[in-house]
Amino acid sequence: QTNEENSEDVLQDWQFQYGANGFEFRSRDNQYSLQIQSRLQFRFATPGDNDPLSFNDFSENSGNVFKINRSRIKVGGHAYKPWLKYYWEYDLGQSNLLDYRLMIEPWEFLNFKIGQFKVEYSRERRISSGAQQTVDRSILNKAFTVDRQQGIELYGRLRRSGSLDFNYWLGVFTGAGRGATENDSKDLMYFGRLQWNIFGENIGFRSSDLSIHKKPGAIIAVAGSTNRSQHTRFSSSGGGFLEGYEGQNPGQYHLKQANIETALVYQGFSWQSEIHWKKIEDRINLRETNLSGYYLQAGYLVHQTFSWWPKPLEIAARYANYTPNTQAESNLDEMTLAFNWFFKGHRNKLTMEISEFDLITEDLGTKDELRFRIQWDISI
Amino acid sequence: QTNEENSEDVLQDWQFQYGANGFEFRSRDNQYSLQIQSRLQFRFATPGDNDPLSFNDFSENSGNVFKINRSRIKVGGHAYKPWLKYYWEYDLGQSNLLDYRLMIEPWEFLNFKIGQFKVEYSRERRISSGAQQTVDRSILNKAFTVDRQQGIELYGRLRRSGSLDFNYWLGVFTGAGRGATENDSKDLMYFGRLQWNIFGENIGFRSSDLSIHKKPGAIIAVAGSTNRSQHTRFSSSGGGFLEGYEGQNPGQYHLKQANIETALVYQGFSWQSEIHWKKIEDRINLRETNLSGYYLQAGYLVHQTFSWWPKPLEIAARYANYTPNTQAESNLDEMTLAFNWFFKGHRNKLTMEISEFDLITEDLGTKDELRFRIQWDISI
Amino acid sequence: QTNEENSEDVLQDWQFQYGANGFEFRSRDNQYSLQIQSRLQFRFATPGDNDPLSFNDFSENSGNVFKINRSRIKVGGHAYKPWLKYYWEYDLGQSNLLDYRLMIEPWEFLNFKIGQFKVEYSRERRISSGAQQTVDRSILNKAFTVDRQQGIELYGRLRRSGSLDFNYWLGVFTGAGRGATENDSKDLMYFGRLQWNIFGENIGFRSSDLSIHKKPGAIIAVAGSTNRSQHTRFSSSGGGFLEGYEGQNPGQYHLKQANIETALVYQGFSWQSEIHWKKIEDRINLRETNLSGYYLQAGYLVHQTFSWWPKPLEIAARYANYTPNTQAESNLDEMTLAFNWFFKGHRNKLTMEISEFDLITEDLGTKDELRFRIQWDISI
Repeated sequence: QTNEENSEDVLQDWQFQYGANGFEFRSRDNQYSLQIQSRLQFRFATPGDNDPLSFNDFSENSGNVFKINRSRIKVGGHAYKPWLKYYWEYDLGQSNLLDYRLMIEPWEFLNFKIGQFKVEYSRERRISSGAQQTVDRSILNKAFTVDRQQGIELYGRLRRSGSLDFNYWLGVFTGAGRGATENDSKDLMYFGRLQWNIFGENIGFRSSDLSIHKKPGAIIAVAGSTNRSQHTRFSSSGGGFLEGYEGQNPGQYHLKQANIETALVYQGFSWQSEIHWKKIEDRINLRETNLSGYYLQAGYLVHQTFSWWPKPLEIAARYANYTPNTQAESNLDEMTLAFNWFFKGHRNKLTMEISEFDLITEDLGTKDELRFRIQWDISI
Repeated sequence: QTNEENSEDVLQDWQFQYGANGFEFRSRDNQYSLQIQSRLQFRFATPGDNDPLSFNDFSENSGNVFKINRSRIKVGGHAYKPWLKYYWEYDLGQSNLLDYRLMIEPWEFLNFKIGQFKVEYSRERRISSGAQQTVDRSILNKAFTVDRQQGIELYGRLRRSGSLDFNYWLGVFTGAGRGATENDSKDLMYFGRLQWNIFGENIGFRSSDLSIHKKPGAIIAVAGSTNRSQHTRFSSSGGGFLEGYEGQNPGQYHLKQANIETALVYQGFSWQSEIHWKKIEDRINLRETNLSGYYLQAGYLVHQTFSWWPKPLEIAARYANYTPNTQAESNLDEMTLAFNWFFKGHRNKLTMEISEFDLITEDLGTKDELRFRIQWDISI
Repeated sequence: QTNEENSEDVLQDWQFQYGANGFEFRSRDNQYSLQIQSRLQFRFATPGDNDPLSFNDFSENSGNVFKINRSRIKVGGHAYKPWLKYYWEYDLGQSNLLDYRLMIEPWEFLNFKIGQFKVEYSRERRISSGAQQTVDRSILNKAFTVDRQQGIELYGRLRRSGSLDFNYWLGVFTGAGRGATENDSKDLMYFGRLQWNIFGENIGFRSSDLSIHKKPGAIIAVAGSTNRSQHTRFSSSGGGFLEGYEGQNPGQYHLKQANIETALVYQGFSWQSEIHWKKIEDRINLRETNLSGYYLQAGYLVHQTFSWWPKPLEIAARYANYTPNTQAESNLDEMTLAFNWFFKGHRNKLTMEISEFDLITEDLGTKDELRFRIQWDISI
């Protein structure tokens, strides 16, 4: 609206390209850039799309469904200086603002992030839904993810020529989840993560070894988080509650949680795992519950061994196991087999997946379900 | 986010233009294009804006209203290949994702569409709200449109040099309407349409003969659809219900419907009509209802006959008749007279319209209403 | 979608720049332009973010909060002709369409605006939230703003070489607030504003004298508005109600309100004030209430006097006083002290603010609260 700063307009000399972040406009002096990208995830699922997590989910026979599961617009780039970066992402179908963040990244060892974004608490959640190896995340995600939060974060990479090579993240957040405008308690969420880049490479938050590592890349990471609020879980919908924690009074639940994570990529093979612990202290009913879970996941571009195998075809598998209360016997597991056809890396791929879910309960017996899904995920 | 595919970035040689799809950026090799367009529809209506459809609608005297009736952003183009097209459209005022679709269009005779989009079931609905000949669609639309659905579609044009010239569409959809994330029943929606291009031209989904056809263009089309779900009608708000069908249990209603459609354009004159039948089988109350309706619509750029008539001024008229239950005597009709001033075709036009609605009921007598509307529709 | 107007596409010769309205694309003949801008406002507040307006607000101790307070995308420019301008603004976090307007601006003395936009009723409200001198607007805003409305407006500037220099605005609106699709009554909202540009400069709707006026710029303005509807106040959420006016029947309240406003900028010093009166006539309970309030605000770029003072640092203060009912003794006031660090004018600034609120009630005694906020507002 205002015109007073007009005199400093940067004129004329611009570059345009289509790249890994979509359509990009960049001033020749690289002080300004604007990237615009659309992403569509189209899915067919039968007998239904949701992970069955509780006993009743197994009984309900929802219908076959075609749907636009994710429909995103992503806008990013930098302004004023190359190290002052911005990024926002909006889900058009849900009308949800997902990310809106500013990143001040002057040095490798010290950077600063502000806004709303995915906390780097767990690998699976941090990896974009468009860069997964399977149709979607494992059954662990719902209970353990810290998801997106609003706040500030310090992060960077510390390394010397030897094997001392670490990434770190430290954050403080409102702890009320995506889109919150208030904090129900005075307490904030605290978060930290330390990641050892074993062979001197930060392999990033990405599934599948599409770049076919000649030398192995691997990480081991530890992450922890505490928060006090009315919520017992977080998702793209914001703060929510796990089954059995319907009471939502201000500051009712104190969450303490930790995650140990590994990942490896080598010659078309990829591996990743997470082990989670979460303690929910109910400060009103004076009750304490411990949740735990883990998953193991591997993928392989079989063409690296058998040259007759189609180059774009990856095979991947995951086993996940979730215990909602370590004092009780109930237990849910998931076995998933997936095939990815990479037309253009993760930017344009087709995924076919079969999953088997088994719920073992103390009192109600055992339930199982087989699910088939096929998905096209394309970024433009 | 990921950078690994960066090496293949398409650099530098881009073309820019402002055209029929708004602002457009295109790589010189035409592998990538991005179009951005905004559309605003501003309306004044008195004594109110809604079509009076039931007895009570006539009694309510709502107020004079200025409003932004539609406020759209449209983003489209192609990526990777010229025949891999994408398009999304979002209504900013309602925060509704309308379209999000991918089109694979390698050949004229066989194309493939996936995502959420307007089913080509009826002409009036398929024509963009910005390319109508009147301020808005007829009273038929609410009851008979299949509207937007999520699913997949095959379509194409079959022709030989003679008069054998057809367009066809075949689709399978979840059948739960715009924005649905689940299917209430196992059943899917099936749809087909066959269109004969009588004089060897596909005149498309467009009102008004702005291009002044020297040779006549005409079509006759037949379309049909079946669906089982909890819904009895669909709109931009998603699946809904017609008056008298408030019960919405999973799979309660089986809909079977058909449409016969004609259209013609010649020397500034344009014609279109639809005849609709719809059967609603209530599987819970074991009741069956038949609905029917038709409209006839014509427009003329009078300058083609009288040279003193302003070139941009079109006159158009419509008669529509709707029977909500063929077993009962109730009946609603609409007579509309409209004037369009085309500043720049359908991309910038002013429409003035007078409508008369008459409701004849078995038991409550007759009601009528006169409505005036004026509208500016502009695409930028 | 349609291609018939394609032949007139404007090709190739485009200019690109980054300026006061963000990223801008412009055809060389200047018939078309497109501007895209993102704005993020990130805020930390303690003990909470909301202005305490009623007795209970003071008692509630909400929590410390980091939040994305505003997250906007702004798209504007012109099309077809340089004087046919468009602009829309969407809040991504709230999924609210704020502005969508077309401006026909052929002459200085007569212009025309249509759509949804901020009525120019009061200075504080009309100034963009990104161009405020404090973290946010005063306690007056909630009760007195006319906010955004849908309708049409005439405006312009009348001047001769002497001191006869005026801006005027005249508008007619539905009067149902942002996003309304119906009018609850037949009555419309009427609005007028007359502004005397004392020294022959229209200083616009902007806080802080960032351009360091060598000659003083000042205005005095009078504005008035009437409306009849179910609403007693308006905000970004649309039509709403003030405390004590919970009844919302069609056409229940007739509002008549006026504002006298001053503003001055000179050598880094800036001043602004408003005095408000508002009469609410309840046509159902036959009750009449008068509200009043005023604020005084000043800012100074101290570097203009003391060269050791950092150039980008402004100090600003505001006193506001609000009387919800002139017949009663209750009274709320606000004292605010703010510091702005302008990295890049209002487009990138950091604001730190301390406010003291005092509520004096007839019956419940006195309450006070101290609030601290820090905010980064950046446009990209």
